[in-house]
Amino acid sequence: MKIDVLTLFPDMFAGVFGSSILGKAADKGIVELNAINFRTYSTSKHGTVDDTPYGGGGGMVLKPDPIFAAVEDRVSDEAVKPRIILMCPQGETFTQKKAEELSQEQHLIFICGHYEGYDERIREHLVTDELSIGDYVLTGGEIPAMTVVDSVVRLLPGVLGNENSAVTDSFSTGLLEYPHYTRPAEFRGMKVPDVLLSGHHANVEKWRREQSLLRTLQRRPDLLEQAELTETERRWLALQNKRSETEQS
Amino acid sequence: MKIDVLTLFPDMFAGVFGSSILGKAADKGIVELNAINFRTYSTSKHGTVDDTPYGGGGGMVLKPDPIFAAVEDRVSDEAVKPRIILMCPQGETFTQKKAEELSQEQHLIFICGHYEGYDERIREHLVTDELSIGDYVLTGGEIPAMTVVDSVVRLLPGVLGNENSAVTDSFSTGLLEYPHYTRPAEFRGMKVPDVLLSGHHANVEKWRREQSLLRTLQRRPDLLEQAELTETERRWLALQNKRSETEQS
Repeated sequence: MKIDVLTLFPDMFAGVFGSSILGKAADKGIVELNAINFRTYSTSKHGTVDDTPYGGGGGMVLKPDPIFAAVEDRVSDEAVKPRIILMCPQGETFTQKKAEELSQEQHLIFICGHYEGYDERIREHLVTDELSIGDYVLTGGEIPAMTVVDSVVRLLPGVLGNENSAVTDSFSTGLLEYPHYTRPAEFRGMKVPDVLLSGHHANVEKWRREQSLLRTLQRRPDLLEQAELTETERRWLALQNKRSETEQS
Repeated sequence: MKIDVLTLFPDMFAGVFGSSILGKAADKGIVELNAINFRTYSTSKHGTVDDTPYGGGGGMVLKPDPIFAAVEDRVSDEAVKPRIILMCPQGETFTQKKAEELSQEQHLIFICGHYEGYDERIREHLVTDELSIGDYVLTGGEIPAMTVVDSVVRLLPGVLGNENSAVTDSFSTGLLEYPHYTRPAEFRGMKVPDVLLSGHHANVEKWRREQSLLRTLQRRPDLLEQAELTETERRWLALQNKRSETEQS
Protein backbone atom coordinates (compact mmCIF):
# COMPACT_ATOMS: atom_id res chain seq x y z
CA MET A 1 0.00 0.00 0.00
CA LYS A 2 1.13 3.54 -0.74
CA ILE A 3 0.11 6.34 1.62
CA ASP A 4 0.72 10.01 0.83
CA VAL A 5 -0.08 12.68 3.37
CA LEU A 6 -0.33 16.22 2.03
CA THR A 7 0.41 18.70 4.80
CA LEU A 8 2.11 21.99 5.57
CA PHE A 9 3.86 20.29 8.52
CA PRO A 10 5.58 17.14 7.20
CA ASP A 11 7.98 17.17 10.18
CA MET A 12 5.07 16.32 12.47
CA PHE A 13 5.00 12.83 10.92
CA ALA A 14 8.65 11.83 11.36
CA GLY A 15 8.23 10.32 14.83
CA VAL A 16 5.01 8.46 14.13
CA PHE A 17 5.93 7.17 10.66
CA GLY A 18 9.42 6.13 11.80
CA SER A 19 8.66 4.34 15.08
CA SER A 20 7.18 1.11 16.26
CA ILE A 21 4.64 -0.75 14.12
CA LEU A 22 4.36 1.85 11.34
CA GLY A 23 8.15 2.17 11.07
CA LYS A 24 8.57 -1.61 10.91
CA ALA A 25 5.80 -1.98 8.31
CA ALA A 26 7.60 0.58 6.15
CA ASP A 27 10.97 -1.14 6.69
CA LYS A 28 9.43 -4.46 5.59
CA GLY A 29 8.11 -2.81 2.43
CA ILE A 30 4.47 -3.51 3.33
CA VAL A 31 3.61 0.18 3.20
CA GLU A 32 5.22 3.26 1.71
CA LEU A 33 4.62 6.30 3.94
CA ASN A 34 5.18 9.79 2.52
CA ALA A 35 4.57 13.12 4.22
CA ILE A 36 4.58 15.75 1.48
CA ASN A 37 4.54 19.51 1.89
CA PHE A 38 1.91 20.78 -0.53
CA ARG A 39 3.40 24.26 -0.31
CA THR A 40 5.89 23.05 -2.94
CA TYR A 41 2.95 22.91 -5.38
CA SER A 42 2.09 26.58 -4.97
CA THR A 43 2.60 28.53 -8.18
CA SER A 44 3.03 31.83 -6.36
CA LYS A 45 6.42 33.37 -5.80
CA HIS A 46 6.10 33.27 -2.02
CA GLY A 47 4.65 29.76 -1.83
CA THR A 48 1.21 31.02 -0.81
CA VAL A 49 -1.31 28.25 -0.17
CA ASP A 50 -4.12 30.12 1.53
CA ASP A 51 -6.04 33.37 1.17
CA THR A 52 -8.85 35.29 2.83
CA PRO A 53 -12.40 33.98 2.39
CA TYR A 54 -14.77 35.37 -0.24
CA GLY A 55 -17.67 37.00 1.55
CA GLY A 56 -15.47 38.17 4.41
CA GLY A 57 -14.97 36.86 7.92
CA GLY A 58 -11.95 35.76 9.88
CA GLY A 59 -9.64 32.84 9.27
CA MET A 60 -7.82 31.76 6.14
CA VAL A 61 -8.93 29.31 3.45
CA LEU A 62 -6.71 26.82 1.62
CA LYS A 63 -6.63 27.61 -2.09
CA PRO A 64 -7.72 24.90 -4.52
CA ASP A 65 -4.79 25.02 -6.97
CA PRO A 66 -1.86 23.75 -4.84
CA ILE A 67 -3.92 20.88 -3.47
CA PHE A 68 -5.30 19.82 -6.88
CA ALA A 69 -1.75 19.96 -8.26
CA ALA A 70 -0.28 17.95 -5.38
CA VAL A 71 -2.90 15.22 -5.64
CA GLU A 72 -2.57 14.98 -9.42
CA ASP A 73 1.18 14.67 -9.11
CA ARG A 74 0.78 11.68 -6.77
CA VAL A 75 -1.69 9.78 -8.94
CA SER A 76 -0.09 10.03 -12.36
CA ASP A 77 -0.17 6.78 -14.34
CA GLU A 78 -2.20 4.78 -11.85
CA ALA A 79 -4.63 2.17 -13.16
CA VAL A 80 -6.48 1.88 -9.83
CA LYS A 81 -7.89 5.14 -8.53
CA PRO A 82 -6.69 6.15 -5.08
CA ARG A 83 -8.91 7.15 -2.19
CA ILE A 84 -8.45 10.87 -1.59
CA ILE A 85 -9.32 11.58 2.01
CA LEU A 86 -9.96 15.00 3.48
CA MET A 87 -9.53 15.12 7.26
CA CYS A 88 -12.12 17.57 8.58
CA PRO A 89 -14.58 18.00 11.44
CA GLN A 90 -17.52 17.90 9.00
CA GLY A 91 -16.51 14.46 7.75
CA GLU A 92 -18.04 11.07 8.37
CA THR A 93 -17.04 9.77 11.80
CA PHE A 94 -14.17 7.32 11.41
CA THR A 95 -14.87 3.77 12.62
CA GLN A 96 -13.18 0.39 12.63
CA LYS A 97 -15.39 -0.63 9.72
CA LYS A 98 -13.99 2.26 7.67
CA ALA A 99 -10.45 1.23 8.65
CA GLU A 100 -11.14 -2.25 7.30
CA GLU A 101 -12.57 -0.81 4.09
CA LEU A 102 -9.55 1.45 3.55
CA SER A 103 -7.12 -1.39 4.28
CA GLN A 104 -8.30 -3.03 1.02
CA GLU A 105 -7.07 -0.09 -1.09
CA GLN A 106 -3.73 0.23 -2.88
CA HIS A 107 -3.22 3.96 -2.51
CA LEU A 108 -4.50 6.44 0.06
CA ILE A 109 -3.95 10.20 -0.15
CA PHE A 110 -4.69 12.30 2.93
CA ILE A 111 -5.21 16.06 2.79
CA CYS A 112 -4.55 17.85 6.07
CA GLY A 113 -5.60 21.42 6.63
CA HIS A 114 -4.15 23.29 9.54
CA TYR A 115 -6.64 25.60 11.27
CA GLU A 116 -7.49 27.05 7.85
CA GLY A 117 -10.70 26.08 6.11
CA TYR A 118 -10.68 24.25 2.77
CA ASP A 119 -11.90 25.86 -0.43
CA GLU A 120 -15.18 24.07 -1.10
CA ARG A 121 -14.08 23.05 -4.61
CA ILE A 122 -11.52 20.66 -3.04
CA ARG A 123 -14.36 19.00 -1.17
CA GLU A 124 -16.74 18.86 -4.12
CA HIS A 125 -14.48 17.98 -7.03
CA LEU A 126 -11.35 16.29 -5.70
CA VAL A 127 -11.83 14.17 -2.61
CA THR A 128 -13.50 10.77 -2.38
CA ASP A 129 -13.92 10.71 1.42
CA GLU A 130 -14.24 13.22 4.24
CA LEU A 131 -13.36 11.81 7.64
CA SER A 132 -13.49 13.07 11.21
CA ILE A 133 -11.96 11.09 14.07
CA GLY A 134 -14.35 12.47 16.70
CA ASP A 135 -16.31 15.41 18.06
CA TYR A 136 -13.49 17.59 19.29
CA VAL A 137 -11.53 20.48 17.80
CA LEU A 138 -7.87 20.04 16.84
CA THR A 139 -5.32 22.45 15.39
CA GLY A 140 -5.14 20.54 12.11
CA GLY A 141 -5.73 17.35 10.18
CA GLU A 142 -2.28 15.93 10.88
CA ILE A 143 -3.00 13.98 14.08
CA PRO A 144 -6.32 12.72 12.60
CA ALA A 145 -4.42 11.49 9.51
CA MET A 146 -1.92 9.68 11.77
CA THR A 147 -4.86 8.07 13.54
CA VAL A 148 -6.39 6.74 10.33
CA VAL A 149 -3.01 5.62 8.93
CA ASP A 150 -2.18 3.75 12.15
CA SER A 151 -5.53 1.95 12.26
CA VAL A 152 -5.35 0.99 8.57
CA VAL A 153 -1.71 -0.12 8.45
CA ARG A 154 -2.04 -2.43 11.46
CA LEU A 155 -4.68 -4.35 9.47
CA LEU A 156 -2.37 -5.05 6.52
CA PRO A 157 -1.16 -8.66 6.25
CA GLY A 158 2.24 -9.17 7.87
CA VAL A 159 2.20 -6.01 9.98
CA LEU A 160 1.11 -7.35 13.35
CA GLY A 161 2.91 -10.38 14.71
CA ASN A 162 0.77 -12.94 16.51
CA GLU A 163 2.17 -11.80 19.82
CA ASN A 164 0.70 -8.33 19.32
CA SER A 165 -2.62 -9.10 17.78
CA ALA A 166 -4.19 -11.10 20.56
CA VAL A 167 -5.10 -8.28 22.91
CA THR A 168 -6.59 -6.02 20.31
CA ASP A 169 -8.37 -8.86 18.57
CA SER A 170 -10.72 -9.11 21.49
CA PHE A 171 -12.49 -6.07 20.00
CA SER A 172 -13.87 -8.32 17.32
CA THR A 173 -16.37 -9.69 19.85
CA GLY A 174 -18.02 -6.27 19.92
CA LEU A 175 -17.54 -6.09 23.71
CA LEU A 176 -15.07 -4.19 25.85
CA GLU A 177 -12.11 -6.17 27.11
CA TYR A 178 -12.09 -8.04 30.43
CA PRO A 179 -9.55 -6.90 33.07
CA HIS A 180 -5.95 -8.03 32.63
CA TYR A 181 -3.52 -8.87 35.42
CA THR A 182 0.13 -9.82 35.44
CA ARG A 183 2.91 -10.25 38.04
CA PRO A 184 3.25 -9.49 40.89
CA ALA A 185 0.26 -11.39 42.31
CA GLU A 186 0.22 -8.83 45.11
CA PHE A 187 1.42 -5.25 44.64
CA ARG A 188 1.20 -2.90 47.63
CA GLY A 189 -1.64 -4.96 49.05
CA MET A 190 -3.56 -4.97 45.75
CA LYS A 191 -4.22 -8.57 44.78
CA VAL A 192 -4.94 -10.39 41.56
CA PRO A 193 -8.38 -12.11 41.67
CA ASP A 194 -8.10 -15.68 42.94
CA VAL A 195 -9.81 -17.19 39.93
CA LEU A 196 -6.95 -16.09 37.65
CA LEU A 197 -4.42 -17.86 39.87
CA SER A 198 -6.54 -21.00 40.17
CA GLY A 199 -5.37 -22.68 36.99
CA HIS A 200 -9.00 -23.70 36.34
CA HIS A 201 -9.33 -22.86 32.69
CA ALA A 202 -13.14 -23.02 32.41
CA ASN A 203 -13.62 -20.78 35.45
CA VAL A 204 -11.13 -18.26 34.05
CA GLU A 205 -13.01 -18.17 30.76
CA LYS A 206 -16.36 -17.75 32.52
CA TRP A 207 -15.02 -14.93 34.73
CA ARG A 208 -13.49 -13.12 31.74
CA ARG A 209 -16.64 -13.32 29.66
CA GLU A 210 -18.73 -12.03 32.57
CA GLN A 211 -16.31 -9.19 33.27
CA SER A 212 -16.34 -8.27 29.61
CA LEU A 213 -20.15 -8.23 29.55
CA LEU A 214 -20.35 -6.27 32.83
CA ARG A 215 -17.82 -3.66 31.75
CA THR A 216 -19.65 -3.16 28.47
CA LEU A 217 -22.95 -2.86 30.34
CA GLN A 218 -21.49 -0.26 32.70
CA ARG A 219 -19.48 1.79 30.23
CA ARG A 220 -20.84 1.30 26.74
CA PRO A 221 -24.33 -0.23 26.86
CA ASP A 222 -24.78 0.99 23.27
CA LEU A 223 -22.34 -1.72 22.12
CA LEU A 224 -24.46 -4.53 23.57
CA GLU A 225 -27.18 -4.10 20.99
CA GLN A 226 -24.89 -5.21 18.20
CA ALA A 227 -22.75 -7.70 20.13
CA GLU A 228 -23.11 -11.42 19.54
CA LEU A 229 -24.60 -12.72 22.77
CA THR A 230 -26.28 -15.99 23.70
CA GLU A 231 -29.81 -15.96 25.06
CA THR A 232 -28.41 -16.95 28.49
CA GLU A 233 -26.02 -14.02 28.40
CA ARG A 234 -28.79 -11.58 27.52
CA ARG A 235 -30.85 -12.84 30.46
CA TRP A 236 -27.83 -12.65 32.79
CA LEU A 237 -27.16 -9.05 31.69
CA ALA A 238 -30.78 -8.07 32.23
CA LEU A 239 -30.49 -9.46 35.75
CA GLN A 240 -27.28 -7.51 36.44
CA ASN A 241 -28.90 -4.38 35.11
CA LYS A 242 -31.91 -4.84 37.37
CA ARG A 243 -29.67 -5.46 40.38
CA SER A 244 -27.68 -2.28 39.84
CA GLU A 245 -30.90 -0.30 39.45
CA THR A 246 -32.19 -1.72 42.73
CA GLU A 247 -28.93 -0.79 44.46
CA GLN A 248 -29.12 2.75 43.19
CA SER A 249 -32.70 3.29 44.31
CA MET B 1 0.23 23.77 32.33
CA LYS B 2 2.53 20.77 32.66
CA ILE B 3 1.88 17.70 30.50
CA ASP B 4 3.75 14.43 30.98
CA VAL B 5 3.22 11.55 28.60
CA LEU B 6 4.39 8.16 29.83
CA THR B 7 5.17 5.92 26.88
CA LEU B 8 7.57 3.27 25.61
CA PHE B 9 7.96 5.31 22.40
CA PRO B 10 8.88 8.89 23.37
CA ASP B 11 10.41 9.45 19.91
CA MET B 12 6.92 9.31 18.42
CA PHE B 13 6.16 12.66 20.07
CA ALA B 14 9.11 14.71 18.81
CA GLY B 15 7.44 15.87 15.60
CA VAL B 16 4.08 16.70 17.12
CA PHE B 17 5.35 18.33 20.31
CA GLY B 18 7.99 20.34 18.39
CA SER B 19 5.96 21.71 15.46
CA SER B 20 3.31 24.27 14.81
CA ILE B 21 0.92 25.36 17.57
CA LEU B 22 2.12 22.91 20.23
CA GLY B 23 5.77 23.76 19.57
CA LYS B 24 5.04 27.47 19.76
CA ALA B 25 3.01 27.10 22.96
CA ALA B 26 5.95 25.29 24.54
CA ASP B 27 8.39 27.94 23.28
CA LYS B 28 6.24 30.66 24.83
CA GLY B 29 6.28 28.80 28.14
CA ILE B 30 2.49 28.34 28.17
CA VAL B 31 2.86 24.58 28.37
CA GLU B 32 5.64 22.18 29.30
CA LEU B 33 5.46 19.03 27.17
CA ASN B 34 7.38 15.94 28.28
CA ALA B 35 7.45 12.51 26.65
CA ILE B 36 8.91 10.11 29.22
CA ASN B 37 9.94 6.51 28.69
CA PHE B 38 8.47 4.60 31.61
CA ARG B 39 10.85 1.74 30.93
CA THR B 40 13.41 3.74 32.92
CA TYR B 41 11.23 3.09 36.00
CA SER B 42 11.47 -0.68 35.66
CA THR B 43 13.28 -2.26 38.60
CA SER B 44 14.26 -5.35 36.61
CA LYS B 45 17.73 -5.81 35.19
CA HIS B 46 16.50 -5.95 31.61
CA GLY B 47 14.05 -3.05 31.90
CA THR B 48 11.02 -5.34 31.69
CA VAL B 49 7.69 -3.50 31.76
CA ASP B 50 5.25 -6.22 30.73
CA ASP B 51 4.58 -9.86 31.43
CA THR B 52 2.18 -12.63 30.39
CA PRO B 53 -1.39 -12.43 31.71
CA TYR B 54 -2.53 -14.38 34.77
CA GLY B 55 -5.12 -16.89 33.68
CA GLY B 56 -3.41 -17.44 30.32
CA GLY B 57 -4.22 -16.18 26.86
CA GLY B 58 -2.21 -14.28 24.27
CA GLY B 59 -0.84 -10.76 24.43
CA MET B 60 1.27 -9.07 27.08
CA VAL B 61 0.12 -6.98 30.03
CA LEU B 62 1.85 -3.86 31.36
CA LYS B 63 3.04 -4.44 34.93
CA PRO B 64 1.79 -2.09 37.65
CA ASP B 65 5.11 -1.23 39.33
CA PRO B 66 6.93 0.79 36.59
CA ILE B 67 3.83 2.85 35.87
CA PHE B 68 3.03 3.57 39.54
CA ALA B 69 6.69 4.57 40.04
CA ALA B 70 6.75 6.82 36.95
CA VAL B 71 3.55 8.63 37.95
CA GLU B 72 4.69 9.10 41.53
CA ASP B 73 7.99 10.52 40.35
CA ARG B 74 6.14 13.15 38.29
CA VAL B 75 3.79 14.30 41.05
CA SER B 76 6.17 14.67 43.99
CA ASP B 77 5.56 17.82 46.05
CA GLU B 78 2.50 19.01 44.20
CA ALA B 79 -0.22 20.78 46.11
CA VAL B 80 -2.81 20.38 43.34
CA LYS B 81 -3.43 16.80 42.30
CA PRO B 82 -2.84 16.07 38.62
CA ARG B 83 -5.29 14.33 36.32
CA ILE B 84 -3.86 10.92 35.49
CA ILE B 85 -5.31 9.83 32.18
CA LEU B 86 -5.21 6.33 30.77
CA MET B 87 -5.67 6.20 27.01
CA CYS B 88 -7.62 3.02 26.26
CA PRO B 89 -10.44 1.77 24.05
CA GLN B 90 -12.60 1.06 27.11
CA GLY B 91 -12.42 4.69 28.22
CA GLU B 92 -15.01 7.42 28.11
CA THR B 93 -15.31 8.83 24.59
CA PHE B 94 -13.31 12.06 24.38
CA THR B 95 -15.33 15.17 23.50
CA GLN B 96 -14.80 18.91 23.22
CA LYS B 97 -16.47 19.30 26.61
CA LYS B 98 -13.81 17.06 28.15
CA ALA B 99 -11.09 19.09 26.39
CA GLU B 100 -12.48 22.25 28.00
CA GLU B 101 -12.59 20.57 31.39
CA LEU B 102 -8.97 19.35 31.12
CA SER B 103 -7.78 22.77 29.93
CA GLN B 104 -8.59 24.09 33.45
CA GLU B 105 -6.05 21.77 35.08
CA GLN B 106 -2.45 22.55 36.01
CA HIS B 107 -0.92 19.13 35.38
CA LEU B 108 -1.95 16.26 33.11
CA ILE B 109 -0.25 12.87 33.05
CA PHE B 110 -1.03 10.52 30.16
CA ILE B 111 -0.34 6.80 30.28
CA CYS B 112 0.04 5.17 26.87
CA GLY B 113 0.04 1.42 26.44
CA HIS B 114 1.25 -0.02 23.20
CA TYR B 115 -0.73 -3.05 22.03
CA GLU B 116 -0.28 -4.56 25.49
CA GLY B 117 -3.12 -4.55 27.99
CA TYR B 118 -2.87 -2.66 31.29
CA ASP B 119 -2.75 -4.44 34.64
CA GLU B 120 -6.16 -3.71 36.14
CA ARG B 121 -4.63 -2.27 39.31
CA ILE B 122 -3.36 0.71 37.28
CA ARG B 123 -6.93 1.35 36.19
CA GLU B 124 -8.47 0.89 39.64
CA HIS B 125 -5.97 2.54 41.94
CA LEU B 126 -3.90 5.04 39.97
CA VAL B 127 -5.73 6.78 37.16
CA THR B 128 -8.37 9.51 37.46
CA ASP B 129 -9.68 9.29 33.88
CA GLU B 130 -9.87 6.71 31.12
CA LEU B 131 -10.29 8.17 27.67
CA SER B 132 -10.87 6.80 24.18
CA ILE B 133 -10.76 9.03 21.11
CA GLY B 134 -13.17 6.89 19.10
CA ASP B 135 -14.40 3.44 18.12
CA TYR B 136 -11.41 2.18 16.17
CA VAL B 137 -8.37 0.09 17.04
CA LEU B 138 -4.91 1.66 17.11
CA THR B 139 -1.47 0.21 17.83
CA GLY B 140 -1.10 2.19 21.05
CA GLY B 141 -2.20 5.11 23.18
CA GLU B 142 0.41 7.50 21.74
CA ILE B 143 -1.61 9.02 18.88
CA PRO B 144 -4.70 9.27 21.14
CA ALA B 145 -2.60 11.12 23.74
CA MET B 146 -1.38 13.52 21.02
CA THR B 147 -5.01 14.10 20.07
CA VAL B 148 -6.06 15.02 23.58
CA VAL B 149 -2.96 17.16 24.19
CA ASP B 150 -3.54 19.08 20.93
CA SER B 151 -7.19 19.77 21.69
CA VAL B 152 -6.44 20.88 25.25
CA VAL B 153 -3.39 23.05 24.55
CA ARG B 154 -5.12 25.03 21.80
CA LEU B 155 -7.66 26.14 24.42
CA LEU B 156 -5.04 27.61 26.77
CA PRO B 157 -4.97 31.42 26.88
CA GLY B 158 -2.38 32.89 24.51
CA VAL B 159 -1.94 29.78 22.37
CA LEU B 160 -4.17 30.61 19.40
CA GLY B 161 -3.77 33.98 17.78
CA ASN B 162 -6.94 35.68 16.62
CA GLU B 163 -6.10 34.87 13.03
CA ASN B 164 -6.26 31.16 13.76
CA SER B 165 -9.16 30.91 16.09
CA ALA B 166 -11.91 32.26 13.85
CA VAL B 167 -12.47 29.23 11.64
CA THR B 168 -12.51 26.70 14.42
CA ASP B 169 -14.61 28.90 16.65
CA SER B 170 -17.55 28.34 14.39
CA PHE B 171 -17.91 24.97 16.15
CA SER B 172 -19.23 26.80 19.14
CA THR B 173 -22.54 27.28 17.33
CA GLY B 174 -23.07 23.51 17.54
CA LEU B 175 -23.46 23.34 13.75
CA LEU B 176 -21.10 22.19 11.02
CA GLU B 177 -19.27 24.95 9.16
CA TYR B 178 -20.61 26.59 6.04
CA PRO B 179 -18.56 26.18 2.82
CA HIS B 180 -15.48 28.37 2.43
CA TYR B 181 -14.15 29.81 -0.84
CA THR B 182 -11.08 31.83 -1.70
CA ARG B 183 -9.28 32.99 -4.83
CA PRO B 184 -9.40 32.27 -7.73
CA ALA B 185 -13.07 33.10 -8.32
CA GLU B 186 -13.01 30.55 -11.12
CA PHE B 187 -10.70 27.52 -11.08
CA ARG B 188 -10.88 25.12 -14.04
CA GLY B 189 -14.48 26.16 -14.64
CA MET B 190 -15.46 25.70 -11.00
CA LYS B 191 -16.93 28.94 -9.75
CA VAL B 192 -17.38 30.60 -6.41
CA PRO B 193 -21.12 31.16 -5.61
CA ASP B 194 -22.23 34.62 -6.79
CA VAL B 195 -23.55 35.66 -3.39
CA LEU B 196 -20.04 35.56 -1.91
CA LEU B 197 -18.77 37.93 -4.61
CA SER B 198 -21.77 40.27 -4.27
CA GLY B 199 -20.44 42.32 -1.39
CA HIS B 200 -23.94 42.22 0.13
CA HIS B 201 -23.12 41.45 3.73
CA ALA B 202 -26.60 40.47 4.93
CA ASN B 203 -27.09 38.07 2.00
CA VAL B 204 -23.70 36.49 2.67
CA GLU B 205 -24.61 35.95 6.31
CA LYS B 206 -27.99 34.46 5.38
CA TRP B 207 -26.42 32.10 2.81
CA ARG B 208 -23.78 30.96 5.27
CA ARG B 209 -26.24 30.27 8.04
CA GLU B 210 -28.47 28.29 5.66
CA GLN B 211 -25.53 26.31 4.31
CA SER B 212 -24.41 25.55 7.84
CA LEU B 213 -27.89 24.36 8.77
CA LEU B 214 -28.25 22.32 5.58
CA ARG B 215 -24.88 20.63 5.94
CA THR B 216 -25.62 19.74 9.54
CA LEU B 217 -29.02 18.37 8.49
CA GLN B 218 -27.46 16.26 5.75
CA ARG B 219 -24.39 15.01 7.58
CA ARG B 220 -24.95 15.19 11.31
CA PRO B 221 -28.67 15.59 12.09
CA ASP B 222 -27.86 14.42 15.65
CA LEU B 223 -26.17 17.79 16.28
CA LEU B 224 -29.33 19.76 15.46
CA GLU B 225 -31.10 18.62 18.61
CA GLN B 226 -28.67 20.50 20.83
CA ALA B 227 -27.91 23.44 18.53
CA GLU B 228 -29.24 26.88 19.32
CA LEU B 229 -31.78 27.56 16.58
CA THR B 230 -34.54 30.11 16.20
CA GLU B 231 -38.10 28.97 15.72
CA THR B 232 -37.93 30.21 12.11
CA GLU B 233 -34.80 28.13 11.50
CA ARG B 234 -36.41 25.01 12.92
CA ARG B 235 -39.40 25.47 10.61
CA TRP B 236 -37.11 26.13 7.62
CA LEU B 237 -35.14 22.96 8.39
CA ALA B 238 -38.30 20.89 8.71
CA LEU B 239 -39.31 22.18 5.27
CA GLN B 240 -35.92 21.27 3.76
CA ASN B 241 -36.14 17.85 5.32
CA LYS B 242 -39.60 17.31 3.87
CA ARG B 243 -38.45 18.46 0.43
CA SER B 244 -35.52 16.06 0.35
CA GLU B 245 -37.80 13.21 1.44
CA THR B 246 -40.20 14.05 -1.37
CA GLU B 247 -37.34 14.11 -3.87
CA GLN B 248 -36.12 10.72 -2.73
CA SER B 249 -39.51 9.03 -2.97
